[in-house]
Amino acid sequence: MKITEGGVTAAKGFEASCCSAEIKYKNRTDMALVFSKEPCVSAGTFTSNVVKAACVQWDQKIVSSGDPVHAVVVNSGIANACTGKEGFDACRKTADAVEKCLNVPYSSVAVASTGVIGMQLPVDKLVAGVEKMSATLDDSLAAGTDASKAIMTTDTVNKECAVTFEIAGTEVTLGGMSKGSGMIHPNMCTMLAFLTTDLDIEKALLQKAVSEVVKDTFNMITVDGDTSTNDTLLLLANAQSGNKKITDEGEDYKTFKSALLYVCTYLAKKMAADGEGASKLFEARVVNAKSKQDARTLSRAIVGSNLSKAAIFGCDANFGRFLCAMGYSGAEFDQNDVELYFESTKGRIKVFDKGTPLVFDEERALEIMKADAVTVYVDMHEGTEEATAWGCDLTYDYVKINADYRS
Amino acid sequence: MKITEGGVTAAKGFEASCCSAEIKYKNRTDMALVFSKEPCVSAGTFTSNVVKAACVQWDQKIVSSGDPVHAVVVNSGIANACTGKEGFDACRKTADAVEKCLNVPYSSVAVASTGVIGMQLPVDKLVAGVEKMSATLDDSLAAGTDASKAIMTTDTVNKECAVTFEIAGTEVTLGGMSKGSGMIHPNMCTMLAFLTTDLDIEKALLQKAVSEVVKDTFNMITVDGDTSTNDTLLLLANAQSGNKKITDEGEDYKTFKSALLYVCTYLAKKMAADGEGASKLFEARVVNAKSKQDARTLSRAIVGSNLSKAAIFGCDANFGRFLCAMGYSGAEFDQNDVELYFESTKGRIKVFDKGTPLVFDEERALEIMKADAVTVYVDMHEGTEEATAWGCDLTYDYVKINADYRS
Repeated sequence: MKITEGGVTAAKGFEASCCSAEIKYKNRTDMALVFSKEPCVSAGTFTSNVVKAACVQWDQKIVSSGDPVHAVVVNSGIANACTGKEGFDACRKTADAVEKCLNVPYSSVAVASTGVIGMQLPVDKLVAGVEKMSATLDDSLAAGTDASKAIMTTDTVNKECAVTFEIAGTEVTLGGMSKGSGMIHPNMCTMLAFLTTDLDIEKALLQKAVSEVVKDTFNMITVDGDTSTNDTLLLLANAQSGNKKITDEGEDYKTFKSALLYVCTYLAKKMAADGEGASKLFEARVVNAKSKQDARTLSRAIVGSNLSKAAIFGCDANFGRFLCAMGYSGAEFDQNDVELYFESTKGRIKVFDKGTPLVFDEERALEIMKADAVTVYVDMHEGTEEATAWGCDLTYDYVKINADYRS
Repeated sequence: MKITEGGVTAAKGFEASCCSAEIKYKNRTDMALVFSKEPCVSAGTFTSNVVKAACVQWDQKIVSSGDPVHAVVVNSGIANACTGKEGFDACRKTADAVEKCLNVPYSSVAVASTGVIGMQLPVDKLVAGVEKMSATLDDSLAAGTDASKAIMTTDTVNKECAVTFEIAGTEVTLGGMSKGSGMIHPNMCTMLAFLTTDLDIEKALLQKAVSEVVKDTFNMITVDGDTSTNDTLLLLANAQSGNKKITDEGEDYKTFKSALLYVCTYLAKKMAADGEGASKLFEARVVNAKSKQDARTLSRAIVGSNLSKAAIFGCDANFGRFLCAMGYSGAEFDQNDVELYFESTKGRIKVFDKGTPLVFDEERALEIMKADAVTVYVDMHEGTEEATAWGCDLTYDYVKINADYRS
């Protein structure tokens, strides 16, 4: 596997474009279109929130139908959630516009939205945006990058990633883009992530790989504990690399899955580090847990705790808060087995040893915690399973961003 | 039932005292003692956190033994959690000191701590504190008030409450004190609450009343979603009112339970409103839910969401965040049944009507949300059950308090 440039347009046969549709923002792009002339098999994961945005329900239908997919239309600014029948109509009208402009069936057009909940989308602006974007599709890497910028809301950086790998001698490319950065506590996948590949693979295997990889990547990040109404991950595969089609879970499938794991981990970590108001990446690594589920539950609880996050912001080695979060996570364990360390590029320090708090060098701990990325490393000494979760610190800026989001 | 003055010393036969033991704070009181010369039956609820503080484990033993209880010793500053064997020894030595000073068995002495996790208690200071406090016990209301101040950590106000009621013509008093104000997301009861009554009642009935009332009071508040290692509620009943003993769930039991519900609701709401950094009380009232559990789950999710809390701080009627929180709460419902209102002393405004966002007067909404206490009122239209949860807004001060808590 080789890390390469670009995002959603890195794979063969994928084009992208974006525009400023003035849906809610002025003076910036706020719509993106990803398109493949060749039909794609699709896979997706969606929010577990009972209150699902209209576009999530639309996409779930498309992915589960098994019909080919050609396009994804995304807007930022308004989420199209809690919008009743009018919200569904907006999805259909957007897809109809793509059908008209690009000559593909409306049922092959996925739509996604992110932004304020409970506000109606201005359909005329969406349709005008689709018309503009259909006329400016481009397969350059820059077009993919521009698309990744158009889907941002409170993100401070755009997020894209691409890799190449070989399937039976044929080079295949996988790329993608995603956006955060609040209401991030994915429970099927994260806010919005769109992946494209020129791989030839059976739909069921594509979905299997996505469902499994999401568990260890997007589902292991949290910014604020709020699972959005709009979480959507879509992966489109258009078979344009010409590889020998993957039809079973052999070596080729594993090669692809490794590439997918890399891209999803990269995007998920980048999303966590760019959480609303975040000043640093906060990682929890739990090893030697009794079960994989325990390892995931414990590591997610650590990065999800407001008190842990505030301690990370304050560079305070207040390890009791991390143990407390583990304690209420739902996982059963004995605190007398647990060892806890703080780690960063500046080094490593042990602070709790099997039930006993250690007297440690506070100056040294402070130095370690001042790094841009801080890891809480926990050895459970109860089994062999491990997991890593990613989050960010809780800062004044998180409050600032969210106290006046709509204004 | 009559609301009266005072707290833990309001009921007959209860004394209190406090002192400055300099456990972690200087220039303030940080230990409290509550004492009844007459033996008390006890009831309690404790944190569901797997990581239980030494003192929680100590008190669980005492309450479950059924032996009489005479005293509670509380310190603020250090939580005595994650402290291994040394932590248990600290509990025993504190109880031993009470035995020596007040001539009651060490096994009748409950202990409670609140503060930093993972730091050892200075036992010599605790013992000296017990000696001082044993010599200054006092049954005045002022002594109870002073005790309620000594157990504060980041609380900005002390919290106490008392009521009187009649049992078969005899006046009975019930009073109590509690403290918050971070790591508040009780799952058996809240951080620390101590109640005293001169009621004569069977132990099993006392526990039953406590367990039931806690579900609708202390378990319905959240400040930051972090369930502490130290949550403890203790209720001591010394029978000194001389009432006809309550031995069944008849009218007298119901009278007592109503009084208990009042005191616990008062203390719980006061704790929520005084959450770390809070500028206002944030209440969620869910009515016409399918089940009591659903109503509790939904209302807790609303007041527990960081995004909802930040919107309340910003006086932003961003109702989508509240629906989103309901959606990921775990309760099943159809958004097309739901009506949502904002309420305060300034009035009431409907913003969401059975699946459809309403166009509402933003100025009016702002006025309503600027009040000191704001209620999100949700009609589920799916059944007849209801619940209320209490929390507070998420402010810059919450981050400030928790980013440098230990320093």
